[in-house]
Amino acid sequence: MSVDSFFLASGNSPGPCFFPATRCRVALLGFGTVGSAIAARLAGPDPVDGLELTHILDRRASAKRDELTASRAALRGNILWTTNVGDILASNADIVIEAIGGIEPATEWIRAALVAGKSVVTANKQVIAHHGPSLLQLAERQGRQLRFEAAVGGSMPIVRAVSDGLAGDRLTRIVAILNGTSNAVLSRMEATGCTVPHAVADAKARGYAEADPSADLDGIDARAKLAILCALGFRLRVDPSRIETRSIAHLQPADVQQVRRRGGAIRQLAFAEYDRTRSALTAWVAPAIVPRSSIFARTCGPQNAAVITGEHAGDIGVFGAGAGGAATAVAAIGDLLTIARDRAAIVPAPLLSAPSIIKGLDRGTHIVDFVERAEPSVGLIAEAV
Amino acid sequence: MSVDSFFLASGNSPGPCFFPATRCRVALLGFGTVGSAIAARLAGPDPVDGLELTHILDRRASAKRDELTASRAALRGNILWTTNVGDILASNADIVIEAIGGIEPATEWIRAALVAGKSVVTANKQVIAHHGPSLLQLAERQGRQLRFEAAVGGSMPIVRAVSDGLAGDRLTRIVAILNGTSNAVLSRMEATGCTVPHAVADAKARGYAEADPSADLDGIDARAKLAILCALGFRLRVDPSRIETRSIAHLQPADVQQVRRRGGAIRQLAFAEYDRTRSALTAWVAPAIVPRSSIFARTCGPQNAAVITGEHAGDIGVFGAGAGGAATAVAAIGDLLTIARDRAAIVPAPLLSAPSIIKGLDRGTHIVDFVERAEPSVGLIAEAV
Repeated sequence: MSVDSFFLASGNSPGPCFFPATRCRVALLGFGTVGSAIAARLAGPDPVDGLELTHILDRRASAKRDELTASRAALRGNILWTTNVGDILASNADIVIEAIGGIEPATEWIRAALVAGKSVVTANKQVIAHHGPSLLQLAERQGRQLRFEAAVGGSMPIVRAVSDGLAGDRLTRIVAILNGTSNAVLSRMEATGCTVPHAVADAKARGYAEADPSADLDGIDARAKLAILCALGFRLRVDPSRIETRSIAHLQPADVQQVRRRGGAIRQLAFAEYDRTRSALTAWVAPAIVPRSSIFARTCGPQNAAVITGEHAGDIGVFGAGAGGAATAVAAIGDLLTIARDRAAIVPAPLLSAPSIIKGLDRGTHIVDFVERAEPSVGLIAEAV
Repeated sequence: MSVDSFFLASGNSPGPCFFPATRCRVALLGFGTVGSAIAARLAGPDPVDGLELTHILDRRASAKRDELTASRAALRGNILWTTNVGDILASNADIVIEAIGGIEPATEWIRAALVAGKSVVTANKQVIAHHGPSLLQLAERQGRQLRFEAAVGGSMPIVRAVSDGLAGDRLTRIVAILNGTSNAVLSRMEATGCTVPHAVADAKARGYAEADPSADLDGIDARAKLAILCALGFRLRVDPSRIETRSIAHLQPADVQQVRRRGGAIRQLAFAEYDRTRSALTAWVAPAIVPRSSIFARTCGPQNAAVITGEHAGDIGVFGAGAGGAATAVAAIGDLLTIARDRAAIVPAPLLSAPSIIKGLDRGTHIVDFVERAEPSVGLIAEAV
């Protein structure tokens, strides 16, 4: 019996036994929208138990440190600001959070952090979609963890749901809204009758769209997330570039209003269905018509939603804030706490295979009529009673 | 570097390194609706990798073994059937699944299994609601795991969502449909105009209701699940008996139809809101009026749904099949796989405190008008765009 368990067994307050005496030291790479939201939580007025922010790396570290508003003055405290990733790698940080975005140098820095013996939390869907399998193998070899709940679905805990919670099922289909920017644009067009550029300008003004939103509108963002979900849910290795996409950028106000009059709504859906017997994956990201009563039509603004179908449990759904620093920070901090709880936990890299066939959209239709492509009950949670 | 990581590093097939050479041995307590569904998955035509069912305990073990249909003949194979829990405790099983229900002997057997060095998976909400904290402490002391995703929400992964996925937020409110039987009864009354007894008979015929459904209709089942969610989400120790309940058993067809005409629906809601500054918990289970456009009104049949509100991420929702052997088996098998993946993982028991104040329903209303009690956006995932 260890000393800790002796204290518990003897009826003393269990308080000190549940967290290690030293808090987990956290180094943050990137002080943009997501990074600064994470930093504000870790070093704000209501900090997170068990976690201590020790380092912040940013290209403009010095300027950003000087620009901190009074409410974030705590970030000038015992935190080392740096532009040099070597400072992070050589530091005593236990966990590195990568929030710089883009494939490089993010991938190389994640790899270096794992090699340096640190666990890693990332919000980077492109890195995980393209290099997740090898990075997860490296993490396992190193006896460290690589977690990425924040890479898909913002605060909606879909990575955990698909990789752990529904591991007891055999998943066959994932249909989801995975891009908050596109969803804000489409629901704005629906509500006001405006054009795509107007809706994009509105989304930028609300902080839901980046300066160049083309990766969002064209489905490049959503297909990276869909590739990650195919790996977790179907154990498939899918290059995101093999997932067919159609942009929402060319939709006209008349398209949106016509669908609306027909009792539907247009949403950017990410769709993946796996036929195991034929090793055939159908996967696409495209504007699709959904029934107004469906969970997808009712997902407005920068929200995300997903319906995951399994052979045994039927449809399981999740929804929540899909964009924004605060929502993404919730997912990243959840991952930090999971690592802090058991730093020695083993997370095996998934065994992935490549599908024999990858199919995209049927030809000929501009907007996918999802109602006709799948049984209409998807997302309705309805049953004849 | 371990032998396993050497194989990985040298570029050999990673296959054999991801699961231990021996499969996890699983002993099942109880061969009722849930237990037999779990057994059918573990020893059926499409078994679960890494898990081996070795023992089945049931009061009527011999008779149930003899009654197995041809499609379940595999359960007569290398599986020891017994009526004696001592056989399980003395066995080489790694994990015990408790699916017998009721508080005793389930609690005592779970305790004994942990003491015998086994991890435990349970679908038993009453045991976890009443004895979860002490059992989780025992599991931690023993270096074993106690998992209970199947105890709340069927296949809807809400235990994992609240305890892990949203750990990065500070949760303030949980509103949920947690009892599939009551929901099937209410949505049936709504669709057909029938009485509670007629709807109950229909639910029994469909396998959604037990012989005596009073614990479901009266909210006893849902309040145990709500107490578990209060522990996971708010870190509160709440005796389920302190959660006020109102039964749906006395609702009249006229009540249901009147609410329907007003544009609403009646659902058995479980509600919990925690005011940390005052250490005041408001918690109840009661028939409530919800807007027809809400996720709750659209939850029909034996489905469950939950909207969890956090200070940082806003509303997060989950929904899915809330009752039935197959759905519950998905949750239990997910827990088995989590344990099999890392048998040495540490799951700290939560640190719980008691709320200073526990409030229930306001007086005077028979059916809670939920629309007026909380902001109407709950569950709507709507936002002005």
